[in-house]
Amino acid sequence: MGELEGYGDLALEVLEGVSVFDEIEVEREDGAVLRGVLLPRPRYGDPDVLVLKLPNGYNIGVSARRIKQLRRIGRVEPTRGAAAPQLSIKRSLPRIHLIGTGGTIASRVDYLTGAVYPYFTAEEIYSMVPELEEVALLSCETLLNVFSEDLTPSHWSKIAERVAQVFEREQPAGVVIAHGTDTMGYTAAALAFALRRIPGPVVLVGAQRSSDRPSSDAATNMLAAAIAAIKAPFAESVVVMHAGLDDTSFYVHRGVKVRKMHTSRRDAFRSVNAIPLAKVSLPDRSFHMLARRYLPRSNEVTLENGFDEKVALLKFYPGMGPEVLEFLVDRGYHGVVIEGTGLGHVATRLIPSVRRAVDEGVAVVIASQCLWGRVNMNVYRTGVELLKAGAMPAEDMLPETAYVKLSWVLARTRELKEVKRIFSTNLAFEIEERSENRFYPPQSYIERE
Amino acid sequence: MGELEGYGDLALEVLEGVSVFDEIEVEREDGAVLRGVLLPRPRYGDPDVLVLKLPNGYNIGVSARRIKQLRRIGRVEPTRGAAAPQLSIKRSLPRIHLIGTGGTIASRVDYLTGAVYPYFTAEEIYSMVPELEEVALLSCETLLNVFSEDLTPSHWSKIAERVAQVFEREQPAGVVIAHGTDTMGYTAAALAFALRRIPGPVVLVGAQRSSDRPSSDAATNMLAAAIAAIKAPFAESVVVMHAGLDDTSFYVHRGVKVRKMHTSRRDAFRSVNAIPLAKVSLPDRSFHMLARRYLPRSNEVTLENGFDEKVALLKFYPGMGPEVLEFLVDRGYHGVVIEGTGLGHVATRLIPSVRRAVDEGVAVVIASQCLWGRVNMNVYRTGVELLKAGAMPAEDMLPETAYVKLSWVLARTRELKEVKRIFSTNLAFEIEERSENRFYPPQSYIERE
Repeated sequence: MGELEGYGDLALEVLEGVSVFDEIEVEREDGAVLRGVLLPRPRYGDPDVLVLKLPNGYNIGVSARRIKQLRRIGRVEPTRGAAAPQLSIKRSLPRIHLIGTGGTIASRVDYLTGAVYPYFTAEEIYSMVPELEEVALLSCETLLNVFSEDLTPSHWSKIAERVAQVFEREQPAGVVIAHGTDTMGYTAAALAFALRRIPGPVVLVGAQRSSDRPSSDAATNMLAAAIAAIKAPFAESVVVMHAGLDDTSFYVHRGVKVRKMHTSRRDAFRSVNAIPLAKVSLPDRSFHMLARRYLPRSNEVTLENGFDEKVALLKFYPGMGPEVLEFLVDRGYHGVVIEGTGLGHVATRLIPSVRRAVDEGVAVVIASQCLWGRVNMNVYRTGVELLKAGAMPAEDMLPETAYVKLSWVLARTRELKEVKRIFSTNLAFEIEERSENRFYPPQSYIERE
Repeated sequence: MGELEGYGDLALEVLEGVSVFDEIEVEREDGAVLRGVLLPRPRYGDPDVLVLKLPNGYNIGVSARRIKQLRRIGRVEPTRGAAAPQLSIKRSLPRIHLIGTGGTIASRVDYLTGAVYPYFTAEEIYSMVPELEEVALLSCETLLNVFSEDLTPSHWSKIAERVAQVFEREQPAGVVIAHGTDTMGYTAAALAFALRRIPGPVVLVGAQRSSDRPSSDAATNMLAAAIAAIKAPFAESVVVMHAGLDDTSFYVHRGVKVRKMHTSRRDAFRSVNAIPLAKVSLPDRSFHMLARRYLPRSNEVTLENGFDEKVALLKFYPGMGPEVLEFLVDRGYHGVVIEGTGLGHVATRLIPSVRRAVDEGVAVVIASQCLWGRVNMNVYRTGVELLKAGAMPAEDMLPETAYVKLSWVLARTRELKEVKRIFSTNLAFEIEERSENRFYPPQSYIERE
């Protein structure tokens, strides 16, 4: 019975006489019969949800509240490590593959330091969102377990490679990636460039509050992500997070257009210079397209992987001298994205260094720290001179997306003319041809004073 | 007659027989009689507005449409350079001092390159906004004429010094600073820290479209800025710009809380982690406070001027190594603001460099690239370790404001304990104690597809 530790009273009641790793058969209220191996109670989530490993290798959560009858079949010896999913047994629900990378969506408090550590096991996610059992069959893996602020471009490659592999080998309806929110936008953009054609969406999802807190948004985000992964007609890299403060609406943001705009709110993620691709509503589980154009699901898997790590993102500020830019060129950097002011400016005193960088084969991109709007370097003299020096405008791309894209382009070619051609090509809807008024959030304040 | 070049048909009609630099007397429809020297037609603005230099040194614009009668008195010889304002002659309107620094609010196209140059003369501003004659008496000067992207912390000091001097010597109701929009937020924050106590507001104003374009927002912004300068009960550094796309509502943003959030829209400026201080409505010229707390007008002028130029603003990104931070420490920088991710994180691999920087007496501040929300380094291990390494949280300050504040603090003291104490003190409402939901703009999209 010690093995059942952590299970709730209701679960313990139906589990009378059963041990962890026993094979059991469960009949639910709705008549469904599930047979599988009882797994240990996951660290988090509903304590009255039993987690079974099914013969096909998938785990499923079953709420003790919905169990009509439970029967012990026998005993299997626990194996170390996750068994490879066996896909021979088909069930009617669509399949999703869940990749854990670390991050708040499943994390735990270190009671010594009081800080939260990223933590991820597939079973926990599954038990955390009991509704998933009606939505999808999950296969899960923990690919990485690092803080999202510690992810580097080489991690993007690793994730992209694994996603391509999963789509090729297992043909899920979609892949969901549990990711820390801090750098989720960067990774989402990276996957958009690396995964040129895929059969279904790659849905990044995170949580602003860790799953061990009552106010956690982890479960609802995960459910919305799963719905998007299944119902989306598109096969793009997207981020699914809360649309507002309530738990009913979720936006599906294009990875190349999304940015974390708040340190802590559950609706921190925003599409910048675009509207979200789609909206998911809970609890009715509806999926509604907002954007008209998208990359549809395809039978192909085309991976163009690899990111140049010798690319920097520099933010311009009034006291900035040319020394950091000069330093990066001296250090053999291949590309620099400068987050300039307004329409795409830097101080005139930096222009000779931009020219030197370009002359030495370093790609220089100018984005705007305004974030919204579009770089236009033909309006003011500074912009014109930057263009003459060989700088490339980031158009309406986020500086972060421009940085990711330049890293990706420079891993394909270092020939500046070709870099320019690829960089200025719209590859994954990262450039919206037309800026619309509704892209910019309205500004109105309840005037209560 | 050649001198009247550029004046419109209506103006030319009333100016029959008059030359530029003639002394004239004008009777307006409303009975007011103005006597002054006719100035050459300014480059921009309404061609049917006559510009007169009054005996008190102020210029005034008079619309030809409103002139009942015009009489030539005599001839004065033009003098080079602007005459110093003579304040002995009082008029009933409140006085505003306008300082030009360059920027789009008065700029011109270079027809050779097609680019726009900043351009500023007081007369042009005055004729550009004929409504100002009913609102304020203006004294004007061009203090700087540089692109706003070329402004440095030493320019902030120069502007602050001049504002203090103007308030001391001339006691205007307020000072209006015409400023390029690119770095207006930075300068506005700088003035907030340098001008500790002043008798009236310092109102920064700019234009997103240059004044030679029909769609220019220069005139309406300037009028709203003048109204704010006169009617404000506060004596803070603020930015006045369009609240939305129409020409009726204008927000008065606190300088330490404002940010340019769009490359080109007239409502580009946003208060971040605060609501605007006030709202100005046109054409009824009403002024309405939104915030409750503010620094009131005072009789004192307390200037604490000077900014440390050895301060850098670094944006963290996933591929960032410790080398740039190390380079800045090697180069003898005194402070670095790092725009981290989320609640205030950087990659774990950077923490030893943060520790080294602090050990060598360099002040390190962590802000958030989310912009909205508040840095909280007690939640995750990375934050806890950054705090242990000696980094200071920027609270809910914009990274740009944190950078300006750190530059200001380091010009006062380099003793890290004291730097920390001053930096974490709320000096100019740059830290809002409580985050309110309404600080974050709502996210809703017209779902037309």
